[in-house]
Amino acid sequence: MTAPLRIALAGLGTVGTGVIRLIEANGAMIAQRAGRPIIVSAISARDRSRDRGIDLAAYPWYDQPEQLAALDDIDCVVEMIGGSDGTALELARKSLASGKSFVTANKAMIAHHGMELAKAAETGNLSLRYEAAVAGGIPVIKGLRDGASANRIERVYGILNGTCNYVLTEMEKHGRAFDDVLKDAQEIGYAEADPSFDIDGVDAAHKLAILAALSFGKALDFEGVEIDGIRHIMAADIGQAKALGYRIRLLGMARIDDGKLFQRVNPYLVPENHPLAHIDGSTNAVVAEGNFSGRLMFQGAGAGEGPTASAVVADLIDIARGDAGTVFATPASKMEPCERAESGNRIGKSYIRFIVADKPGVLAEITAAMRDAEVSIESLIQTEKAAEGSVLISMVTHDSRERDVSLGLAALSSSTSLKAAPVVMHLLSDQD
Amino acid sequence: MTAPLRIALAGLGTVGTGVIRLIEANGAMIAQRAGRPIIVSAISARDRSRDRGIDLAAYPWYDQPEQLAALDDIDCVVEMIGGSDGTALELARKSLASGKSFVTANKAMIAHHGMELAKAAETGNLSLRYEAAVAGGIPVIKGLRDGASANRIERVYGILNGTCNYVLTEMEKHGRAFDDVLKDAQEIGYAEADPSFDIDGVDAAHKLAILAALSFGKALDFEGVEIDGIRHIMAADIGQAKALGYRIRLLGMARIDDGKLFQRVNPYLVPENHPLAHIDGSTNAVVAEGNFSGRLMFQGAGAGEGPTASAVVADLIDIARGDAGTVFATPASKMEPCERAESGNRIGKSYIRFIVADKPGVLAEITAAMRDAEVSIESLIQTEKAAEGSVLISMVTHDSRERDVSLGLAALSSSTSLKAAPVVMHLLSDQD
Repeated sequence: MTAPLRIALAGLGTVGTGVIRLIEANGAMIAQRAGRPIIVSAISARDRSRDRGIDLAAYPWYDQPEQLAALDDIDCVVEMIGGSDGTALELARKSLASGKSFVTANKAMIAHHGMELAKAAETGNLSLRYEAAVAGGIPVIKGLRDGASANRIERVYGILNGTCNYVLTEMEKHGRAFDDVLKDAQEIGYAEADPSFDIDGVDAAHKLAILAALSFGKALDFEGVEIDGIRHIMAADIGQAKALGYRIRLLGMARIDDGKLFQRVNPYLVPENHPLAHIDGSTNAVVAEGNFSGRLMFQGAGAGEGPTASAVVADLIDIARGDAGTVFATPASKMEPCERAESGNRIGKSYIRFIVADKPGVLAEITAAMRDAEVSIESLIQTEKAAEGSVLISMVTHDSRERDVSLGLAALSSSTSLKAAPVVMHLLSDQD
Repeated sequence: MTAPLRIALAGLGTVGTGVIRLIEANGAMIAQRAGRPIIVSAISARDRSRDRGIDLAAYPWYDQPEQLAALDDIDCVVEMIGGSDGTALELARKSLASGKSFVTANKAMIAHHGMELAKAAETGNLSLRYEAAVAGGIPVIKGLRDGASANRIERVYGILNGTCNYVLTEMEKHGRAFDDVLKDAQEIGYAEADPSFDIDGVDAAHKLAILAALSFGKALDFEGVEIDGIRHIMAADIGQAKALGYRIRLLGMARIDDGKLFQRVNPYLVPENHPLAHIDGSTNAVVAEGNFSGRLMFQGAGAGEGPTASAVVADLIDIARGDAGTVFATPASKMEPCERAESGNRIGKSYIRFIVADKPGVLAEITAAMRDAEVSIESLIQTEKAAEGSVLISMVTHDSRERDVSLGLAALSSSTSLKAAPVVMHLLSDQD
């Protein structure tokens, strides 16, 4: 055995204490697999007096996380603080500047500052690892960086937010309304008190931007992700989708489209024969389609103390072994910004749901608007009374340009027949 | 860019030519990701004149594979010849002995000689990689060795043979007989002319033994795998299983049971809510359950030119980057032989199917035998006429010791009521 890998841990919430618990539980095995022990040489968190359910007396304590970056006898700083900027970012910059490798579970920070940090790491010949930042315990960063490394990745997409998937599949199983399910999810701790980061797709977008950079070797571009969440989905949408052979899932989807980068987080109608249609509850799953491997899928727990700690410590084992390879597979200095694809140009089938006044002529008005926009309709169902005096109409278009669908809907925007803004979701296809 | 990784390729069948095709197609990207180019510096195959649909004129040709091991200007030999012994093994031994790293897709050779070769590689500080040997294009070796490295793996199991899964899911979809589907599969090239290696579970057993060694850090023990295939499965079994909420899949299953190694390839009844129940066609999938990560699943194409080449070249990229870590995660010198678990001790539910004479008293005879063996029956269906004068009875036991089930069946073995040997399949549970 050679010298141990000495780590300093900043942030002792659920994940931070999970990392300590894991190293204590599996330490001997880890030392064997890593070729040397991994030891926690310093820890830091805001509140020293808080009971974290674990004895921390043996670990040297620092009140300020930034102190960890300045320590002499540390090889790697592990950041579990969170937040895209502030303390976490300062710690990352200072750790790398002082010659320490850096491991983080912080998707927001990597999504916003990944390029800067990757360049700093590669310039200093240091490791920057972030397996836990995407899809929790699923080793999908390694899966793409190492496992699928021989492939040009054609698309990368998946279920990247467990809260959304839990809410959608509960709505699906029990026919319940979004608000009801969300409230329950908050009570049992599956959703935050302020759930907007998850529910509105921002969390999934952070992860998607990271996956896209890794897959395509283009500069990370979080600002370029089109984002829509799941607030507007009704149990009736899920029912209609099911009748058509689809399940609704919030997907992050990225691909290179004629040399341009397409990135979108959106609820999609996923065909029942696609593996993502069977991902239920808070499970995450990532699909990567390589030009030689074909479709690969990685699934598992997307969050939680154990799974996240598993991902963090796997990064540490890589570093202890003598990490080889760059941060995003492609050297950061070679990752050029990529022009953004316009989603309006994309061609595919869409699901559109209207809530309209229950009066004669409404169907004619809607179908005429779609015809005028050159959107042809594959199927149309008018079934449910949405509320007193209004009905719900859902349709699926034939393959259409998304811009044309938007034009058709724009033409209807001033119509007094519509009781709510129409909801559009795309059908996942092999071309998406 | 530093000096290229120079490889020598032995065997130019589908996979060998696929590797060349991949390196030609994705070479620039690979050089960037690997930090240096990977170049094919020598090739060898039996028949130089055969048209392989690819121009090989630029590659130095050697008639004898063993010549590759002796070349001076080669860093890594890639073996695509196949066979557990003979030329492939000679080449592996000689390559490692002469200081060359070694990459192979040869599951039989690794299953039989993996320990010897791993020790040779580690003694010489060389890489031995075999991602393509298990589950084709799915990066499950890396997923276990690197992705799940922080975990004690509690079980590893999965669908490891695409031919069997194709046959079973075709039987399931169309209610067709085994022989019919196999014949079709042979005609379209999904099954070999001599399909016994696949159909009888040997191929899956090779892969399982490799996964077990990697997961548990115990010496590879292919001889210790209990093997049963899918020949005896009838469409009626699949129908009965479906009525009970299960799908039949050939699984390889390995776990450590009270310190003993349990390894088995068997058709299992998989509950519909388990992700493996949704793996159809020739797709492979591997589940690893870690003590922190929870259940991880990796799925994709288990065979084929592109997927296999993808796995081989990913290994080469790892080596070009400066491979870190040992062959089976645990150093080979530390992998002790492990006592084998007795499957008779295992407790679980079993599905048992009888073909019996259509006469009074048979049910009483069967149920009495099971009662005497202390096996209690959860459900029993007698539905189908198997042939003139005989009927099919299938039952599911409550949790029972497998030995007791065998005893019950042994007591019936001399019965003139049974028209065929009973078929037993286990129900996959969380305890399996």
